Formats: sequence, structure tokens, C-alpha cells
Amino acid sequence: MTAVDEVLAANRAFYEAFEARDLDAMSDLWEHSDRTSCVHPGWRRLEGWGAVASSWAALFQGPQQLQFILTDERAEVVGDAAWVTVDENILGAQAGATVAAVNVFVRTEAGWRLVAHHGAAVLGGPD
Amino acid sequence: MTAVDEVLAANRAFYEAFEARDLDAMSDLWEHSDRTSCVHPGWRRLEGWGAVASSWAALFQGPQQLQFILTDERAEVVGDAAWVTVDENILGAQAGATVAAVNVFVRTEAGWRLVAHHGAAVLGGPD
Repeated sequence: MTAVDEVLAANRAFYEAFEARDLDAMSDLWEHSDRTSCVHPGWRRLEGWGAVASSWAALFQGPQQLQFILTDERAEVVGDAAWVTVDENILGAQAGATVAAVNVFVRTEAGWRLVAHHGAAVLGGPD
Repeated sequence: MTAVDEVLAANRAFYEAFEARDLDAMSDLWEHSDRTSCVHPGWRRLEGWGAVASSWAALFQGPQQLQFILTDERAEVVGDAAWVTVDENILGAQAGATVAAVNVFVRTEAGWRLVAHHGAAVLGGPD
């Protein structure tokens, strides 16, 4: 398995945990550190694992269970860091909505861990 | 100069080129490669330096000259990769608007170069 494949597998596990509202699986995917950050679409940036974890707990307890079709997924690896760009095409409550995301990973002894998830709603603009 | 300081300097040069609408300076800051990507707030992701460069040319020829106050700027370095999280507080035409950005850099022989810029409009949500 190449590093790119490992990162893509970690990225897919992230969306599986998101869809399954599985807080334990989501927690396992993130680095639990101060440098961790997360931008949910439209939200202010959350910094540090505590704030990030709280946001997933709140989202998973909320009314919306999101399902994604991922397109244009692409991983780039530089040493022990990697970033994935992907379009999250959201089914269900927000049908038709697309979020352009970038996910930053670092390689740890336990595998690749998320250090940043950053989502931006796609409103239009040039294709 | 530490790597973190180098990355912060590159990040500030990015916003200086943006404010000055200086396409040459902007071009010098980016890696000119297929893995380069850019999400302007609300836009679809642009992939590859050609598409990214065209977007800056179009923005710099447009009516809006943006000025930023940068807050919560933070750089993290892992080997030859780095990411900066920063809030772009926009003055002028879109007074009061804030964009949460993440900028990914790679270290090259010529210095740190942008490989991803990703901006998301902050609409609200928890502080």
C-alpha cells in the first residue's frame, strides 16, 4: 500500500465515521493536539482537539444525518504530511449541496491522523 | 529564521501580493504544478497552476481591491510541508466579512511555495 493509498483510506474512513455518526471512530482518526483545527461550512474555525471533538458530538446529536458522494478526491503526500482535496456532494436534507473540502493529515506511529478539516460551501462561480 | 517563521513570511507575502494585485509576485509564491489547487470563497475548486493563475488574473482585473486584516494566523510545519490557518477579515467592499482560510505550503529549493489555498466564508456558528 502506497502512502497515497493509506491517506485515501484514512480520508474515506473520515467520511464513513461522519455518515455513521460514529464519535469513537471519528475520534480515532484525529490527532488529539492543540494544532488540530476544523472549519465546518460557514462556521468559525475551531482550534484544538477539545473544540473539534465537541463539534462532532454536537453534529452527531443533531437532526441532520448527512450522506456524501465524494468526487474529485485527490491525495498528495510530502514526507510525513499529506493533504486531500475532495468535493463532498451532500444527499438528503441538503440535496444538491456541494462542499469543497481540504483535509490535512500527518503520519504518526499509529497511522495517518487528521490535523485539519476545512469545508467551504460551493455557491457557484466558474466550473 | 525558523521554518515556522519562513512559512509565516511566505503567507504574509501571499496576502501582500493579493492586496497589491501583483500577479508576478503571486505567481512567484505558488508551485507551478498539477497538484496546486485553490478554492476562492463560494467557488468550485480550481486544480492545476494554469487554472489557479487564471483566477488570480481575473480577480486582479476585477472591480474589487480587497484589503485584509489577518487574525489568528498559525503555521505548523511537518518536514517539508506546512499549513497555515488564518482568518481574513476583509475591509472595503465587503466590510465585516471574514473568510477562514487554510494555506498549504511545500518547501522547495527556492523556498516555501503554496500548493493549496482554501477560503471559506464565515457565516456564523459558535464562536
